[in-house]
Amino acid sequence: MKFSNRILSMQYSPIRKLAPYGDAAKKKGIHVYPLNIGQPDIETPQQFMEGVANYKDAVLKYAQSQGLDETIESFIKYYKEWKIDFEKDELIITNGGSEAISLALTTICDVDDEIIIPEPFYTNYGGFAEAVGAKVVPFITKAEEGFHLPTKEVITSKITNKTRALMVSNPGNPTGVVYTEAEVRMLADICKEYDLFLIADEVYREFVYDGLKYTSALYMKDIEDRVILIDSISKRYSACGARIGLVASKNKELIAQIMKICQTRLCVPTIEQLAAANLINTPKEYFEKVLMEYEARRNILHEKLSKIPGVVCEKPTGAFYVVAKLPIKNGEDFAKWMLTDFSHNNKTVMFAPAEGFYATEGLGVDEIRLSYCLNTEALSDAMDVLALGLEKYMEIQGTAQI
Amino acid sequence: MKFSNRILSMQYSPIRKLAPYGDAAKKKGIHVYPLNIGQPDIETPQQFMEGVANYKDAVLKYAQSQGLDETIESFIKYYKEWKIDFEKDELIITNGGSEAISLALTTICDVDDEIIIPEPFYTNYGGFAEAVGAKVVPFITKAEEGFHLPTKEVITSKITNKTRALMVSNPGNPTGVVYTEAEVRMLADICKEYDLFLIADEVYREFVYDGLKYTSALYMKDIEDRVILIDSISKRYSACGARIGLVASKNKELIAQIMKICQTRLCVPTIEQLAAANLINTPKEYFEKVLMEYEARRNILHEKLSKIPGVVCEKPTGAFYVVAKLPIKNGEDFAKWMLTDFSHNNKTVMFAPAEGFYATEGLGVDEIRLSYCLNTEALSDAMDVLALGLEKYMEIQGTAQI
Ligand SMILES: Cc1ncc(COP(=O)(O)O)c(C=O)c1O
Ligand SMILES: Cc1ncc(COP(=O)(O)O)c(C=O)c1O
Repeated sequence: MKFSNRILSMQYSPIRKLAPYGDAAKKKGIHVYPLNIGQPDIETPQQFMEGVANYKDAVLKYAQSQGLDETIESFIKYYKEWKIDFEKDELIITNGGSEAISLALTTICDVDDEIIIPEPFYTNYGGFAEAVGAKVVPFITKAEEGFHLPTKEVITSKITNKTRALMVSNPGNPTGVVYTEAEVRMLADICKEYDLFLIADEVYREFVYDGLKYTSALYMKDIEDRVILIDSISKRYSACGARIGLVASKNKELIAQIMKICQTRLCVPTIEQLAAANLINTPKEYFEKVLMEYEARRNILHEKLSKIPGVVCEKPTGAFYVVAKLPIKNGEDFAKWMLTDFSHNNKTVMFAPAEGFYATEGLGVDEIRLSYCLNTEALSDAMDVLALGLEKYMEIQGTAQI
Repeated sequence: MKFSNRILSMQYSPIRKLAPYGDAAKKKGIHVYPLNIGQPDIETPQQFMEGVANYKDAVLKYAQSQGLDETIESFIKYYKEWKIDFEKDELIITNGGSEAISLALTTICDVDDEIIIPEPFYTNYGGFAEAVGAKVVPFITKAEEGFHLPTKEVITSKITNKTRALMVSNPGNPTGVVYTEAEVRMLADICKEYDLFLIADEVYREFVYDGLKYTSALYMKDIEDRVILIDSISKRYSACGARIGLVASKNKELIAQIMKICQTRLCVPTIEQLAAANLINTPKEYFEKVLMEYEARRNILHEKLSKIPGVVCEKPTGAFYVVAKLPIKNGEDFAKWMLTDFSHNNKTVMFAPAEGFYATEGLGVDEIRLSYCLNTEALSDAMDVLALGLEKYMEIQGTAQI
């Protein structure tokens, strides 16, 4: 009896790693502000439960492996609003964006094949790659440059004959970056020149601030057969627990290949699919309100963070995360300490050490990721508590070093 | 841009392959008896939708990666009735038994590792193995022996230093076999002697006829740390569309390793989990009625099948399938022909060619799999139509050969 090398090389989630310390703090009666996970606190549109009610059959049957017709149609309609035209055989409903990522990697990677990803990146990209035996090859993007892309040469220098795709989250988790049209164009050019797929994870498409223009990878018409779109209702409709996502591509042959795995795993839950299909009826005002709310949160978070001495953090323009560089040695130590040794007025803050979002050893050690899935008042208070904690921690660290 | 070798080596589902022909027949107005898929027609217990109603939160949040507490607890309670004791850290809720299989294989197999499986087997075992780059090594079980296991030596002769596990479905899909205690004991002995895991797919545990005693792999106490249990509510509660299954093992380290993948894919739908948890309140009579119904169906199917001249088919004792050897050359041709060229009183029958359930080339070509997820009256009529079709097909084939 032995375990596979692939599983042994996988990590436990760095985002969930601190949970036991958080639980311990709560047990002591301390209020813990949860800035560690991307779990929106916004109400799920009532259209979701209305959609559940659309389920009528007395026998809860398997759905088609590709997805229910109504769910596929609802996504096609949604993309039309973004000026993206999909035909029915170009998308597959998945168990969240998560399964979509896993399907994409399994379909294009054999063992030791490589995927190039800007770091820091959504940690689970690494997990999914390891599960299929593929390798993440990172290139660095920097806090002080707002995590925008480096030059084309930096990226292409990473390409080998084992490279299968570039993969990006845009808007970015954990960075909050929104790529400009020129940046997306550059990625497209690279994929064209080097014959690669572009895995475009656009689950945060709606979360773009400051009136910025969003550029989907699918707007690059000349490479649309290279784009593998990853999408999800989790963030868009605050429906994380529904586990409805999608993989889509104008490359019908790719979708046909992915369908083989989908037939093997049979299907995605019928009721959740019906509920998701009905989300297309969510009124526009829902998104407008949500966007205003997140933008206000982003403003407060950034304003307060950048006032803390020594903190480096460009104003993020998308998603609901920020990566901040702190004037300390180790973000994980600090994150743990905030939960085990610190509280102010019986409150403390939980956040994710950023190290786990990097593939290159040693990077991100002095950085943390904060998510702003919390109302403005709580967020403002959380930032004050963080500032006080950091001050205290630096004091102690300073003393310890004498 | 290229696809992975693993995806290119995968097949489309042999069970779903004939669907276009079935659809075409239906378009012509022919009634098609669906004996091709394992989709029960029994009503899902009302406890399921009552469980859906237990969902109250305004924000549809991610569940824990391991599963909701109530869902885990409900499974623990269920197993107690089968005299199997699980602790909380010994099971993980999955997206159907399907995901459970995929998780098990990913956790114990690297590329080119081998899993030994009696053939014919549930075809998707092959698909899941290919997706992780592992190899299915089959040993033959035969229609005329009711698909019971061969001698220990036949099985152990397949073991190499790449073998990681034996894998069985008990009761069997597609065979309907229920292994005796002696057979399960033999599998346990082999696993012990050769240091292997035993992947025990017991999703049809409830479907055992003739008052036979069911032997779970977990009854073999001396190898309980080697058993990886695959389970699902799909068949038991006729809740295929819920996609709730489970992987369980007394080997806590194994479960801890599997959790890495589960954290990566985040979680299983919250609402479906709540609904599944409430299924534990399904009254005993539900199962009694279902069992009686399936047993009656099995009887009719077998009685009628074995009266058809030249058909070889032992009476199955479990699940809801039977594999029958027909006096023809090619089951797939016949299956297609039944949909494209035959009808009796405007009715025909759809079933699965058995070839796709075998890994060894050339085996099962003259066999078909019938599922009996249809009420007795319809089933009886379907068997008459099948008999007439077979007679006609053999006539034509005979002529063609002159
Ligand atoms: C960038 C990114 N992609 C994909 C996902 C997967 O989300 P889900 O599986 O809930 O759709 C997440 C979740 O946090 C994410 O941040
Ligand atoms: C033997 C066997 N195992 C597992 C499964 C998977 O079922 P599910 O994913 O619906 O739980 C099936 C479905 O037909 C099956 O026949």
